[in-house]
Amino acid sequence: MDKCPSKLAIDVELVCDTLARFIKNQMGGTGLQRVILGLSGGIDSTLAVYLAVKALGPENVRGLIMPFRTSSPESEADALTVADELGIRTEKIEISPIVDSFLTTARDADKVRIGNICARVRMVLLFDRSKPNRAIVLGTGNKTEVLLGYSTLFGDSACSINPLGDLYKGQVYQLAEYVGAPQQIIDKKPTADLWPEQTDEGEMGISYYEVDRYFYYLVEKGFTPVELLDKGFDADFQRNIIERVNANLFKTKVPIIARISGKTIKQPISLSDLE
Amino acid sequence: MDKCPSKLAIDVELVCDTLARFIKNQMGGTGLQRVILGLSGGIDSTLAVYLAVKALGPENVRGLIMPFRTSSPESEADALTVADELGIRTEKIEISPIVDSFLTTARDADKVRIGNICARVRMVLLFDRSKPNRAIVLGTGNKTEVLLGYSTLFGDSACSINPLGDLYKGQVYQLAEYVGAPQQIIDKKPTADLWPEQTDEGEMGISYYEVDRYFYYLVEKGFTPVELLDKGFDADFQRNIIERVNANLFKTKVPIIARISGKTIKQPISLSDLE
Repeated sequence: MDKCPSKLAIDVELVCDTLARFIKNQMGGTGLQRVILGLSGGIDSTLAVYLAVKALGPENVRGLIMPFRTSSPESEADALTVADELGIRTEKIEISPIVDSFLTTARDADKVRIGNICARVRMVLLFDRSKPNRAIVLGTGNKTEVLLGYSTLFGDSACSINPLGDLYKGQVYQLAEYVGAPQQIIDKKPTADLWPEQTDEGEMGISYYEVDRYFYYLVEKGFTPVELLDKGFDADFQRNIIERVNANLFKTKVPIIARISGKTIKQPISLSDLE
Repeated sequence: MDKCPSKLAIDVELVCDTLARFIKNQMGGTGLQRVILGLSGGIDSTLAVYLAVKALGPENVRGLIMPFRTSSPESEADALTVADELGIRTEKIEISPIVDSFLTTARDADKVRIGNICARVRMVLLFDRSKPNRAIVLGTGNKTEVLLGYSTLFGDSACSINPLGDLYKGQVYQLAEYVGAPQQIIDKKPTADLWPEQTDEGEMGISYYEVDRYFYYLVEKGFTPVELLDKGFDADFQRNIIERVNANLFKTKVPIIARISGKTIKQPISLSDLE
């Protein structure tokens, strides 16, 4: 498994069971049985949907396929392959008319702004469709992406529960292989598919494999950047990554609320004594 | 001040300064000087924009006015009055065409789903416009609303910073009066303005004054529901509120991420040693 640095290799059987149980347990309190998620044809949503089907059965999983005009047709074909393979119901919604209705009010929007609008439009559709499907929204962002901030706040990072948020990209590949994800999805280059020819690694100027290896030492083992110079991570590489991490940390902290009394309710209040 | 229960009365001068300082301090780390917020003509966004102008000056505050076809024309007029009074720049965006582009794909949507789409479309526009304005998005949800869950997840509750999130509705009124908000905004009935004739209190079947009084005992003082029977809060009233609180608690906790290693980065990493 050459997409996952050996130091990050996981016990796939155990982690797969743990994540399926996480999904099942999280349904508990909601009174709902179903999840809905966006299927992009990429590795993350593919793994997420395999885990969801394992946890809840295909009848309790819904996929939304939401191509934009610049999305690759291959992405949609891959998403459909996965849905067919697992026997889940899907709905396809072309988001271009919706995104265009935003762009009518924002003619100066560059490709980054358009990419963010696409991500948020998909979020709106997922949460809207969660209602008639009596489902909760399953997130698909992985830990490498979260740490790098390579996601749209209140867009693709918005969800009810996320089984992948503590898995590095390499671990996602490792699990995807274990659950039997289609080989062409494992083999293709990761892309947010926000514009033609985009690849995550090209856009960020990094390789996921190297970033994962770096995060192993920095995040999991707590080494400092100076110590990691000795492990062979050069200063420019580290600076690129750390600047991204620092600049995007706020995404994990918002909204920041001004404290006045600071008191709030954190746990459900029992009503039984009132009966 | 008859809109705020006496037990919740605050030192308006002190709290006003605290919240303005909060806004100013939060800009610190961002490298930005400006905030952008949605102006609905309601009491919450009115107080928020007064606080923002106090903190940053009118040149550093942008308002978006985003009426939907069922929004009351009075709401927009009130929003403009506030903007004129404070001398801030606004942009008006009719959201009906955008919402309609979503509804084309969701013909069975009821008014609650439409209301959620409206709230999320406004979020998308605020975050989109935050980029060219080099601004962060200021939230305007108050504590009563947050506890009741009377907001749209990843919609009106989505923001970068929120100065009002720890103020009860009555305290919002008390501060709004202190900062000199227009009287007609203080006098009108609170409404999410999601459909004609909607009022928050009518929709929820409660009075904010009574809810605030109840939350004073329940949240701030830690009384139990049974103890509060003795304070004159009857069981039906308490059940209505507590059921709302419990059903909406998840909104303050999502996304829930499956833990595998559990390790992450919480504070910026210093790059200075790498120079």
